[in-house]
Amino acid sequence: MTVPNPPADSGPVAIICGGGSFPFTVADALMKSGRGAVLFALRGFADPDRVTGYPHHWAHVTQLGRFLRLARREGCRDVIFIGTLVRPSFRQLVNFDLATLRVLPGAIRHFYGGDNHLLTGMARMLEDHGFRLLGAHEVAPEILVPEGALGQVAPAPRDLDDIHYGLEVLRAIGPFDVGQGVVVANRHVIAVEAAEGTDQMLTRVGELRQSKRFRAPPGIGVLVKAPKSGQDWRFDLPSIGPRTIEGIIEAGLAGLAVKAGGSIIAEPQIVVEKADRAGVFVAGFPETPGGSA
Amino acid sequence: MTVPNPPADSGPVAIICGGGSFPFTVADALMKSGRGAVLFALRGFADPDRVTGYPHHWAHVTQLGRFLRLARREGCRDVIFIGTLVRPSFRQLVNFDLATLRVLPGAIRHFYGGDNHLLTGMARMLEDHGFRLLGAHEVAPEILVPEGALGQVAPAPRDLDDIHYGLEVLRAIGPFDVGQGVVVANRHVIAVEAAEGTDQMLTRVGELRQSKRFRAPPGIGVLVKAPKSGQDWRFDLPSIGPRTIEGIIEAGLAGLAVKAGGSIIAEPQIVVEKADRAGVFVAGFPETPGGSA
Repeated sequence: MTVPNPPADSGPVAIICGGGSFPFTVADALMKSGRGAVLFALRGFADPDRVTGYPHHWAHVTQLGRFLRLARREGCRDVIFIGTLVRPSFRQLVNFDLATLRVLPGAIRHFYGGDNHLLTGMARMLEDHGFRLLGAHEVAPEILVPEGALGQVAPAPRDLDDIHYGLEVLRAIGPFDVGQGVVVANRHVIAVEAAEGTDQMLTRVGELRQSKRFRAPPGIGVLVKAPKSGQDWRFDLPSIGPRTIEGIIEAGLAGLAVKAGGSIIAEPQIVVEKADRAGVFVAGFPETPGGSA
Repeated sequence: MTVPNPPADSGPVAIICGGGSFPFTVADALMKSGRGAVLFALRGFADPDRVTGYPHHWAHVTQLGRFLRLARREGCRDVIFIGTLVRPSFRQLVNFDLATLRVLPGAIRHFYGGDNHLLTGMARMLEDHGFRLLGAHEVAPEILVPEGALGQVAPAPRDLDDIHYGLEVLRAIGPFDVGQGVVVANRHVIAVEAAEGTDQMLTRVGELRQSKRFRAPPGIGVLVKAPKSGQDWRFDLPSIGPRTIEGIIEAGLAGLAVKAGGSIIAEPQIVVEKADRAGVFVAGFPETPGGSA
């Protein structure tokens, strides 16, 4: 079934809403811009207290038919998917509706093929039903991290050197769909993020510091995050928020650098306040820092 | 001060002995071959109970002069450095002797420059004093992992595919002096080793499995270890031992693969027994598995 693309930017945006605060940051931006949003809150993932502040429906991850029906009725054409979605256990997979059962064999294959495959399959399915899957940054570009220092603290020359080195590491592992983050201190790679995620990696760095396996004095070392090469920005842009800054502080790092225009930030004012108070930097770096290719 | 190279293979080998069981595996091999060994056990690192079974002297890491004097008196010319040596805290740095104080400024610079720099500096200093620093694999080649499966379990085709993928990842990060290990499941990178070391990485993989962030069924996934590119084999070859197999089992992996002829194994019979009992494989892979360049 092929449906012609709907006109761009019509109707409120359907936000398929996982955990964390990002869905609400994006919804706020859409409300402010006048476009509007309807949350499709995923049971077990979305924050129930915060969902009630927005137009919303609840759905199980297994209720694709329900989503398609309600999104159409709400006049949504554009869909974004945002928020954490730790893969559901089989016990959470209840209340399958017919539309879900139809795509299930493919979905299961995607599910075990890694996130990108799962979500690429979801995107294709939504398009088959006349919707358009966009990235959160396309409907709310103000959530993208801008270039330069966000707060009052700027990276020192040594930090810039570590950022550059971290970027080279991320570029080298980019083709392998590994993580999006790396911690570097004095051009020494302290930690590489894979399935554990950024927060857990920062906890590890703090522990390595406590156990003296990572001995550079506090205030030395940076977290660098960048999108994986070939990553589909509609699903999974590197993201930072207040929790990331807490992790940076606990790990004793000098700050964090993310790709400007290629990373999203939740609750930026809280991020900047926390960072300024602790004296750590938060910076967006351009595509090629230092002007190198 | 330049001293001509002493004749090769003369006298017992001086083993500067850090933590873990590797120093004793090497000492056993040297005793068996008739060459002999003298342990220079580093206080706070070497296992006191096991050291007593060999000709030995105790020394602080700060007693370079003491080492040089005693090693000469024992008729040692070849020196190897083996065993874990978590970087000492400043409080452990007591009893500096004169020879150490002479090289201290350089040593401190090496110390914060990363392990390879530290040890390269040590090697140069030993050579300046007429000794020759060798790799453990050069004096006891029987501790090197051979090619093929070591026990009764061989890697399945899927495992070989994951091994190959893991090797590509290690090759990509090789230039950055990151870790020597990676865990891959279904061509998905689950964990990359950096400062935390292999054992802690395997613990993390087990936790990721328990928290369902890594969902491939138990028995899927491999640990791959290979020397870093440009790594000085005299100091730091990838190593495995009984503890590694325990980690593999706890992480629910299918097995582990290390570079044949480029990795050392402690207590091989215990490793193979444990692996066979748990049904996991231990394999040495050739330089270019699958014949690729």
